[in-house]
Amino acid sequence: MKAFYGDLRLGILGGGQLGRMLIQQAINYNVTVKVLDPDREAPCRRLCNEFVVGSLSDYETVYNFGKKVDLLTIEIEKVNVDALEQLEREGVMVYPQSRIIRLIQDKGLQKQFFKENEIPTAEFQIISSAEQLKASSIPFPYIQKLRRDGYDGKGVYKVVDESYLAKAFTEPSLIERWVDFEKEIAVIVARNENGEVKTFPMVEMEFNPEANLVEFLIQPSTLPFEIHQEAEAIAKKIADTLKIVGILAVEMFLTKDGKVLVNELAPRPHNSGHQSIEGNVVSQFEQHLRAIFNQPLGDTTCLSNAIMVNVLGEAGHEGPAVYEGIEKILKREGVYVHLYGKALTKPFRKMGHVTIVDADREKAIEKARFVQQTLKVIS
Amino acid sequence: MKAFYGDLRLGILGGGQLGRMLIQQAINYNVTVKVLDPDREAPCRRLCNEFVVGSLSDYETVYNFGKKVDLLTIEIEKVNVDALEQLEREGVMVYPQSRIIRLIQDKGLQKQFFKENEIPTAEFQIISSAEQLKASSIPFPYIQKLRRDGYDGKGVYKVVDESYLAKAFTEPSLIERWVDFEKEIAVIVARNENGEVKTFPMVEMEFNPEANLVEFLIQPSTLPFEIHQEAEAIAKKIADTLKIVGILAVEMFLTKDGKVLVNELAPRPHNSGHQSIEGNVVSQFEQHLRAIFNQPLGDTTCLSNAIMVNVLGEAGHEGPAVYEGIEKILKREGVYVHLYGKALTKPFRKMGHVTIVDADREKAIEKARFVQQTLKVIS
Repeated sequence: MKAFYGDLRLGILGGGQLGRMLIQQAINYNVTVKVLDPDREAPCRRLCNEFVVGSLSDYETVYNFGKKVDLLTIEIEKVNVDALEQLEREGVMVYPQSRIIRLIQDKGLQKQFFKENEIPTAEFQIISSAEQLKASSIPFPYIQKLRRDGYDGKGVYKVVDESYLAKAFTEPSLIERWVDFEKEIAVIVARNENGEVKTFPMVEMEFNPEANLVEFLIQPSTLPFEIHQEAEAIAKKIADTLKIVGILAVEMFLTKDGKVLVNELAPRPHNSGHQSIEGNVVSQFEQHLRAIFNQPLGDTTCLSNAIMVNVLGEAGHEGPAVYEGIEKILKREGVYVHLYGKALTKPFRKMGHVTIVDADREKAIEKARFVQQTLKVIS
Repeated sequence: MKAFYGDLRLGILGGGQLGRMLIQQAINYNVTVKVLDPDREAPCRRLCNEFVVGSLSDYETVYNFGKKVDLLTIEIEKVNVDALEQLEREGVMVYPQSRIIRLIQDKGLQKQFFKENEIPTAEFQIISSAEQLKASSIPFPYIQKLRRDGYDGKGVYKVVDESYLAKAFTEPSLIERWVDFEKEIAVIVARNENGEVKTFPMVEMEFNPEANLVEFLIQPSTLPFEIHQEAEAIAKKIADTLKIVGILAVEMFLTKDGKVLVNELAPRPHNSGHQSIEGNVVSQFEQHLRAIFNQPLGDTTCLSNAIMVNVLGEAGHEGPAVYEGIEKILKREGVYVHLYGKALTKPFRKMGHVTIVDADREKAIEKARFVQQTLKVIS
């Protein structure tokens, strides 16, 4: 491994905010960073040694990009996996491994993986046709999810009763029993090539139902210790079973009857880990780098109560972004602003995040509410 | 102020590690960063929107660079101040202000400033000729310092007795009474345009006498509370008197008889503040950005015991840098590696730093010793 000398060429597929924060941390390790993204104005554009504009789903583009690096990682799952497989055969290190990205790209395969490995998840059925959907044994209401290319709530449809079937997806999908959950929780786990596995403490999330995005995340969770243990054990089991190299976000539901069910996986830095930049001994970005460089994994202990608030483009505003209220929120102690360098805002676009830390949990929550009310991205 | 929208053009004079760490933090605020440095391989080279190769001491170069930015800051004092003055007259924001850089570039003017403002400092005399030196009233041993262009121990000469005078500097200099100090201490203070002033908690330093560089810095200091108060009050007084915008590192001696004497000022991020990246609520880099953007200053509270160890090129090694022992030090908890992206090492060159945090001070010191013994930069 040639890391630390500036001659390790790290390629990142995707040049969004996750790549941007990964680069911010990678600066500490002298790596040469190349980024591929279709958007020539992507957030990583000016922060890397080489920025290549091109399609992440095109075989030739991904292959040619990958041939020029030593180690390839992702900040988005929707990439050409055939190219990654070929690159692996030709000796490029691809972390997470192509087989894991392939598995996770397909929500059907992901669910089958959970079932085969006895990982608790909501009851489901793979659906290939409208007839199968009608004949399904899962009771209403249920959730239909496209097997591929859904994200941030897109490609998800709630089937409340029979009348909803007419508008259901006709593409390959899966349906899942409706989970009456108490909380959405998440654990980020990391594994390096040596097989060392380490979890971050479990976090609790709150979603903005309108935007269907995580908008508020808090650590440490105040749920019972057994729930932490169970969620972290599930995340470890998945990392061990997959033998992933890199970090993996495991999104879970805590049901009203106290069960932990895995919802979805993301084999990359994840929105549910942003609080770790200020809130934990090492951040998810540092941990991902340590994992893919095959270095010892870092201490994930919480330093404080930490809340992450997504900064979303205001509804009704589209165009060049204007940030209102930054000065007001910076007046409060323990408030950290992260803007993602996106020139244009649109409703609910992730434009940045703010982390709030405070030794007093209630004060942290009060500050988070203040941040949510005060910071606006308009046009 | 157009910060946060990507259209504030921030210029940095100097592209070394201080600029690099400033950019790492500035990424959070969407600024467009331009850097001027004479070395085309400078650490900032690949991390900014525009990197200009050119002399920092040439009027035209600095002026032309400054005309293309909205806000100009420095990461090194040795820059053309005439150009900065002209830029200020033409409406470019220059922080720290040119008059402060001019004052600090000249150790003689700096000392006179201390005297005029009753800031405690070692007794001194300005020297313009060999005759003045011989006739000086300051007793042996004393320190002779070049008024201009000394740094990291260069331009400093200890005059032990009369026999040392033959090798004394003949350039404009100052001589200072030898201070029999107990400790070197430092306080970083920040001031924004609104006049808000905030200090970081005082740190203690240990120097490597061979390299004549800070190699070990610890916070919080265990010196008596009154010393903290006095050092921080002095730093505040200097910032208020100068009306500086930006951060200012105030290096001080604690004498064996308990007096705090100011040694030197640096109006920029400083080696004595690197521990703040992980060790304080906000880092010196964040604080400098907040000050020059005229935002509320951040909370500077220590989060933990934090030790900063400079990573210096090993004696006897010159050439492409090889880092030994990184894996071993990353195995220890709370160890943060910062490499500066310098391709070539030479004896005692600052190649990076490591911060060690631990709730237990003795453990932090033990880990710092381990890091010093384990991490080597060879060729």
